[in-house]
Amino acid sequence: MSLTSDEPIGVAVVGAGYWGPNLVRNFQSSPDFRLAWLCDLDVARAKKVLGGYSTVQPTDDLALVLADENVAAVAIATPAGTHLDVAMQALAAGKHVLVEKPLAATYAEGVELVAEAERRGLILMCDHTFCYTPVVTRIRELVHSGEIGDLQFLDSVRINLGLVQRDIDVLWDLAPHDLSILDFILPAGVEVVSVSAHGTDPIGAGRACIGYLTLQLSTGAIAHVHVNWLSPIKVRTTIIGGSKRTLVWDDLSPTTRLAIYDRGVDVAAPEELGDEARRNLLVSYRSGDMVAPALLEREALSTMVAQYAAAIRTGTPPLTDGRAGLRVLRILEAASASLRAGGVAVRLDTDGGIS
Amino acid sequence: MSLTSDEPIGVAVVGAGYWGPNLVRNFQSSPDFRLAWLCDLDVARAKKVLGGYSTVQPTDDLALVLADENVAAVAIATPAGTHLDVAMQALAAGKHVLVEKPLAATYAEGVELVAEAERRGLILMCDHTFCYTPVVTRIRELVHSGEIGDLQFLDSVRINLGLVQRDIDVLWDLAPHDLSILDFILPAGVEVVSVSAHGTDPIGAGRACIGYLTLQLSTGAIAHVHVNWLSPIKVRTTIIGGSKRTLVWDDLSPTTRLAIYDRGVDVAAPEELGDEARRNLLVSYRSGDMVAPALLEREALSTMVAQYAAAIRTGTPPLTDGRAGLRVLRILEAASASLRAGGVAVRLDTDGGIS
Amino acid sequence: MSLTSDEPIGVAVVGAGYWGPNLVRNFQSSPDFRLAWLCDLDVARAKKVLGGYSTVQPTDDLALVLADENVAAVAIATPAGTHLDVAMQALAAGKHVLVEKPLAATYAEGVELVAEAERRGLILMCDHTFCYTPVVTRIRELVHSGEIGDLQFLDSVRINLGLVQRDIDVLWDLAPHDLSILDFILPAGVEVVSVSAHGTDPIGAGRACIGYLTLQLSTGAIAHVHVNWLSPIKVRTTIIGGSKRTLVWDDLSPTTRLAIYDRGVDVAAPEELGDEARRNLLVSYRSGDMVAPALLEREALSTMVAQYAAAIRTGTPPLTDGRAGLRVLRILEAASASLRAGGVAVRLDTDGGIS
Amino acid sequence: MSLTSDEPIGVAVVGAGYWGPNLVRNFQSSPDFRLAWLCDLDVARAKKVLGGYSTVQPTDDLALVLADENVAAVAIATPAGTHLDVAMQALAAGKHVLVEKPLAATYAEGVELVAEAERRGLILMCDHTFCYTPVVTRIRELVHSGEIGDLQFLDSVRINLGLVQRDIDVLWDLAPHDLSILDFILPAGVEVVSVSAHGTDPIGAGRACIGYLTLQLSTGAIAHVHVNWLSPIKVRTTIIGGSKRTLVWDDLSPTTRLAIYDRGVDVAAPEELGDEARRNLLVSYRSGDMVAPALLEREALSTMVAQYAAAIRTGTPPLTDGRAGLRVLRILEAASASLRAGGVAVRLDTDGGIS
Repeated sequence: MSLTSDEPIGVAVVGAGYWGPNLVRNFQSSPDFRLAWLCDLDVARAKKVLGGYSTVQPTDDLALVLADENVAAVAIATPAGTHLDVAMQALAAGKHVLVEKPLAATYAEGVELVAEAERRGLILMCDHTFCYTPVVTRIRELVHSGEIGDLQFLDSVRINLGLVQRDIDVLWDLAPHDLSILDFILPAGVEVVSVSAHGTDPIGAGRACIGYLTLQLSTGAIAHVHVNWLSPIKVRTTIIGGSKRTLVWDDLSPTTRLAIYDRGVDVAAPEELGDEARRNLLVSYRSGDMVAPALLEREALSTMVAQYAAAIRTGTPPLTDGRAGLRVLRILEAASASLRAGGVAVRLDTDGGIS
Repeated sequence: MSLTSDEPIGVAVVGAGYWGPNLVRNFQSSPDFRLAWLCDLDVARAKKVLGGYSTVQPTDDLALVLADENVAAVAIATPAGTHLDVAMQALAAGKHVLVEKPLAATYAEGVELVAEAERRGLILMCDHTFCYTPVVTRIRELVHSGEIGDLQFLDSVRINLGLVQRDIDVLWDLAPHDLSILDFILPAGVEVVSVSAHGTDPIGAGRACIGYLTLQLSTGAIAHVHVNWLSPIKVRTTIIGGSKRTLVWDDLSPTTRLAIYDRGVDVAAPEELGDEARRNLLVSYRSGDMVAPALLEREALSTMVAQYAAAIRTGTPPLTDGRAGLRVLRILEAASASLRAGGVAVRLDTDGGIS
Repeated sequence: MSLTSDEPIGVAVVGAGYWGPNLVRNFQSSPDFRLAWLCDLDVARAKKVLGGYSTVQPTDDLALVLADENVAAVAIATPAGTHLDVAMQALAAGKHVLVEKPLAATYAEGVELVAEAERRGLILMCDHTFCYTPVVTRIRELVHSGEIGDLQFLDSVRINLGLVQRDIDVLWDLAPHDLSILDFILPAGVEVVSVSAHGTDPIGAGRACIGYLTLQLSTGAIAHVHVNWLSPIKVRTTIIGGSKRTLVWDDLSPTTRLAIYDRGVDVAAPEELGDEARRNLLVSYRSGDMVAPALLEREALSTMVAQYAAAIRTGTPPLTDGRAGLRVLRILEAASASLRAGGVAVRLDTDGGIS
Repeated sequence: MSLTSDEPIGVAVVGAGYWGPNLVRNFQSSPDFRLAWLCDLDVARAKKVLGGYSTVQPTDDLALVLADENVAAVAIATPAGTHLDVAMQALAAGKHVLVEKPLAATYAEGVELVAEAERRGLILMCDHTFCYTPVVTRIRELVHSGEIGDLQFLDSVRINLGLVQRDIDVLWDLAPHDLSILDFILPAGVEVVSVSAHGTDPIGAGRACIGYLTLQLSTGAIAHVHVNWLSPIKVRTTIIGGSKRTLVWDDLSPTTRLAIYDRGVDVAAPEELGDEARRNLLVSYRSGDMVAPALLEREALSTMVAQYAAAIRTGTPPLTDGRAGLRVLRILEAASASLRAGGVAVRLDTDGGIS
């Protein structure tokens, strides 16, 4: 299916639940796409999402959608357990595929999807929406450019009174955001080497409603994630500590969403640290300015949709491709294993992935 | 040494470093005490703390202080490693003893102190200052009275750009605050059963500068503590989740220091939870009001000092007595063991303590 | 044009600029209305607002819209200077009319509109959107029910880096929000008796970019409004002081949008105040709890649209009818007069209005 | 009375009420002074302030204090109505004088004091404490250096549940802070030309409890001050708008006390503004970074005390000398006149002052 670069790409959205309407809205406002279908097993729900004024066609017939030659791409916003099936059908029909996070219900299923998409030369993109926010893009630049120095720690808190999910625990529900962001901003060559997870289900929901993840990175740095469905207050704060500067991203503060602190603790070179009494003199504190850079106000999904189009047109994998989705799945599975084992650190098998 | 109830108690402060001046100021303004001495190995430092207008006597001679018959009580604000020695001398001289947190450098040393004080019938009090703040007092009432329902989780964050300590890591420096508060508010019969600790030293300071503690409670609830010397921003927030209400204590918000949320997730009785489809209907969300109770503005140290006097006069152990200090030490030692073992959960030996 | 109560009301939106798209979206999602037309002098702009998937018809021909027998109501979101002309045409065609704030460019024009609508028995509604927010509805209840006691003062700040308008100053741009809210919540019988306005144009924009309004109320209470296009920070805070309780509405705080403070100053009865020394003893301070009530999250425009439908169906004027719009215009005109006169208090002619 | 530069200056504090204890504490910790006396009509109150450990002498005998040859300076923290009498006695005795704000109860009294001090060659300093905070010092630098460009507006809010004063209204109680800060930061040559004041006394306290000041500056810029004793929330925010940058000083935010915004509205040169349609194109918006500079944490009173010593030793008037106090008094009196006249703008007689 060849695409001329200035013709809108025919697209169908599959899934009219929580996230689907956002995709519908963004595909409709994108000049890159022509939205043809909204498909959901519950066609009434699809109709309701489209409203009474839309020319987009609702349907519950996925085969019909996939048979539409004008459709070159699909976007899947169904429950994770169905991703493998729906996405495999779409790939088999020669469609490019965008999937909601997480990529699939298991790492193994994710591997299948990535392999199939690569075999067919089709784009497989994971909708790690946060990676397309102006703030995360800027954080990535600040980390990759060396401006923060060496990454020393990352601490992310994502808590509020959240919907207790039917099929997944709070780690699988919320931590994919933090893990995909971590994956996106980590400098080349830095990897997650082990995962410890703690959690609890104090309301008898049948799955962890509060979770803590501790990730050891290959550099000795640490990343920690706190996710929680039971907090009466909403917190969305990530601190990214560097040897030169430290970033504080408070997503609930529109005016100071990102703060770059030139504050920190400096220690002299390790070889000078033998003498404890002397070392004490070698610790110094910087108390510099804070800069809150101006950030564009742009909806992340609109950027994501544009990147999906660009990937399709150029054949180049997007930054949050299937492999990025796989890396997140691998950590989630290790987290679940650790949770079952009472918090024991689970090492990630560095060559266990697809190659 | 008998004390008539309306005569000020002669007191000496030992240690004129970071915390000593606060003790000096509060003993001076207390009608319960008559401050006689400020003792420090560095007598110039003691003189500087007292300033040029004080009638309190500076000295570097602890024996002289302890020989003073007008001194019935001492307050020790020296480094933790010296607590055993200084406090044992004071007890031997028949003085009541107040010690800065942590009670001692090790659990074993703490046991010695508690045993000696009990043997001699002297008060041994731990200055867990936060327990004497109006806000923590109120939290204790809300937990103990059952107003929040069952305690489901506690999450405490205590981070800022902190002084890297010479002799202790961040867990021993900051977590005693959170652990003493937890000890203070836990309902009777609820105990910490195991501790997992993660930490990192990304600046080469020779000790953990960032730490995470996960405590399993005997009820299945979880407590989590994040302490960090490297954060450019200061956070002092504790969330205490209950089955009926959830408390948010933000110590940096003078106007809403304590918020009581009538918000939460309700699940029907566990026996009804077998059928997954049905269970889903049994989860409901409350979105009620938030109440920020009016709290007295009173300096915690002043209350603590008054409680020290009351304990001395009545012979009744204060709420934060030596045994409370011991319970904190036991958790800290388990945390250090877990940290060395890569985060493995370390069980607390419930009968391993002093009896 | 009779309407059966369960049939959607045919509606047309006039004006596809800043606010029109919000009306389009809300009429589309309302079961009460059937949106037929989006009319703008610039038909390309209307088409762009509708996007490529809508069945709503764009047009630049107002006569065509008004001739449509299926259209019973219009919503006008054009510049204030055109309100008289467009609304008079619509009323002449027998259509109910909703107008964006301010009702008209002048008080005299507003009087014409109100008279014409009343003569024809048609609904004339002013889109004072904020009055339909859950928070303002709640504030009105708290004031009208007497829960806050006597209204003592109102202080409203509405500042941010705002678009310098071409045709109106900052008072006419932003203060209508505050004035319509004030009008909405004032208890029956309490009136604005005079207006003082101060302003400045420090950037040479040709109109005031910063404005301050002081309104004297008939009870001796005061209302003050600060509007500002040049503030780098956004503030949207209104304090409503009562003799029993004081409300703080911070529209930028989703979690504590409304706080009800049981704090205040009590003074004994005035007859006891003769003796100054004694009076001093009669002032007392209450420092009670703060309650942040749970508020529904509902888009105000959706409620406004529903109220428009209800008014049309029942023939009962909505709370923000044309006369409410007139009261706001009268204050704005007095404010402009005061501004020109250097801040002199301009009295409102209580019988100068339409009767 | 000649002073060698390295000998502490003998000082006496007069007034042991609300502010006196802060002066006592700061003079005691200053190496520049030797505090000899604390004088209050109520000697018991003076004793209580000194506490049971001080070598400073309490007294109720001002003559005794002024007769003390070792006392070269006094600091007066008595009610404003007594400033003239106490300060004149002190000056007559050859003492340097520091007075709490406001300088005196009336402008005329202030003029007497300034004249007397100048005649005698003694330092007369006004304790405009806020001018000695690190943040106001920095703001002054940013304004005076031209870094913010032309001063366009200043908006200051100083509200909370405050003590209703017995002898003065809220303008005289709180606005001296804002007016002394304004006086301190205004660039050379910029003057306040008129004052409008609005206020209300909704609780029957016998004096305005809520006040609004609007000051016209000689450049066309505007300054506005809101002071309020009846607000349940505390706000201490000043916005200082400049043509290049705008400063936001939030005194209750320890981490972002001062924010420098590179945001604003630019308009092309006035001569190009004739054509309205064209002008519209000439307005542009800057949305740049925000910088929160690192500020020292230093108690303002300690800096003020050091400046008092420097002024005494060098004979050079301090920045907040008696004439600065006079300028504040002149505005306060104009404000009272405006308040009585219903808010009419009262012009300041530019040559009516002392010369």
